[in-house]
Amino acid sequence: MTITMYDLAGIEADRRFSPFCWRARMALAHKGLAVETVPWRFTEKDKLPQPNAGRVPVIRDGDRVVHDSTAIADYLEEHYPDRPSLFGGETSRALARFIQNWTETVLQSGLIRLVLVDIYRHIGPEDQAYFRSDREKRFGATLEEFVGDRAARLPAFRASLDPLRRTVERQNFLSGDTPAYADYIVFGAFQWARAISDFDVLAADDPVRAWRGRMLDLFGGLARRAPAYGN
Amino acid sequence: MTITMYDLAGIEADRRFSPFCWRARMALAHKGLAVETVPWRFTEKDKLPQPNAGRVPVIRDGDRVVHDSTAIADYLEEHYPDRPSLFGGETSRALARFIQNWTETVLQSGLIRLVLVDIYRHIGPEDQAYFRSDREKRFGATLEEFVGDRAARLPAFRASLDPLRRTVERQNFLSGDTPAYADYIVFGAFQWARAISDFDVLAADDPVRAWRGRMLDLFGGLARRAPAYGN
Repeated sequence: MTITMYDLAGIEADRRFSPFCWRARMALAHKGLAVETVPWRFTEKDKLPQPNAGRVPVIRDGDRVVHDSTAIADYLEEHYPDRPSLFGGETSRALARFIQNWTETVLQSGLIRLVLVDIYRHIGPEDQAYFRSDREKRFGATLEEFVGDRAARLPAFRASLDPLRRTVERQNFLSGDTPAYADYIVFGAFQWARAISDFDVLAADDPVRAWRGRMLDLFGGLARRAPAYGN
Repeated sequence: MTITMYDLAGIEADRRFSPFCWRARMALAHKGLAVETVPWRFTEKDKLPQPNAGRVPVIRDGDRVVHDSTAIADYLEEHYPDRPSLFGGETSRALARFIQNWTETVLQSGLIRLVLVDIYRHIGPEDQAYFRSDREKRFGATLEEFVGDRAARLPAFRASLDPLRRTVERQNFLSGDTPAYADYIVFGAFQWARAISDFDVLAADDPVRAWRGRMLDLFGGLARRAPAYGN
């Protein structure tokens, strides 16, 4: 039976730019599960299964509804144990949490200072009004001010990727020879950035870019085929 | 048969302060292997098994000599497969490399700006001459200058621990319910700092400090019993 996934979309229905949705999308592909995605916009709380917190990803698998990318990964691992493992054991699942926390406190926090305003350019008028108001209140700056010094921030951002860089220059994936959920967590952030911004966050010769290329190739080029900038 | 480990020591033979040696020491304890440590000083290249790069840890296990903490962990895992696993599988071993790279590029790089000069205070005159000359050349500053603004650096250092903090406030160890090699990698850095410095790098209520306490309790308080500052 096909799983339904509610996936954050831009004004173009096939432009998908939530880092958390990309985690879930790659996890579903890793499990080899058929999925039908439903484009969902920031202001469409009513279109999600009820009750909801107004956030995606949300999946519906038969009569089960699961909210939140982490809960979705755990759900898939538990309910589809005969499919390829997302974690590769309990120790790996625990270590992946460190990588998730690094992704959320360092990587995504860095990327948002580079690309936030570009999200605004890819969403419809109603979403734009919500997004500007919500994010400007949250960050205490206009969207334009928030990323205004992004060229100056870029060297420090790239330096902050050192732990990732050193790892993927010595092995194909964070998870070793083959990718697993920790890779999808980190990749989701880069795919979010490239889905909505032409600002080149990675240098051409960065080993992180080569790893991102390997991630884009997975599952028949699932993420590479999606509307995005750069390679 | 008892394994011999060459372990960086201060002027007091039992003050052991190499982060890499602590990784190996904890790994040996994890495997339940008997070890006899040999205190070794920076300038005692001739006392190590030949040939050597003048660095520790080095272990001698029967007629085998293994240099470098990472090689030692891999050696122990391969040669003592029936003992508790250091990695918990190949995916975990791969993910632990990310944590190692984070430890070396973020954690140890941050700590050295807080405690470098305190190493100098715990080593003998001959080592002091070598250490001051070598490190001042490497860092382009006197030892005292290098840590001179450490109080001002402390908030940013503590903030840089966010990925670790968020992880160990939700699970006992980086590796999950029980510790494994990734924990020893990170712990080695903190044990190095507390072995030679009374500068309090962690706030009293920091979840990282609570995790460090759990690490100090392991193996009958192996690391807690060693000469060090703080708790």
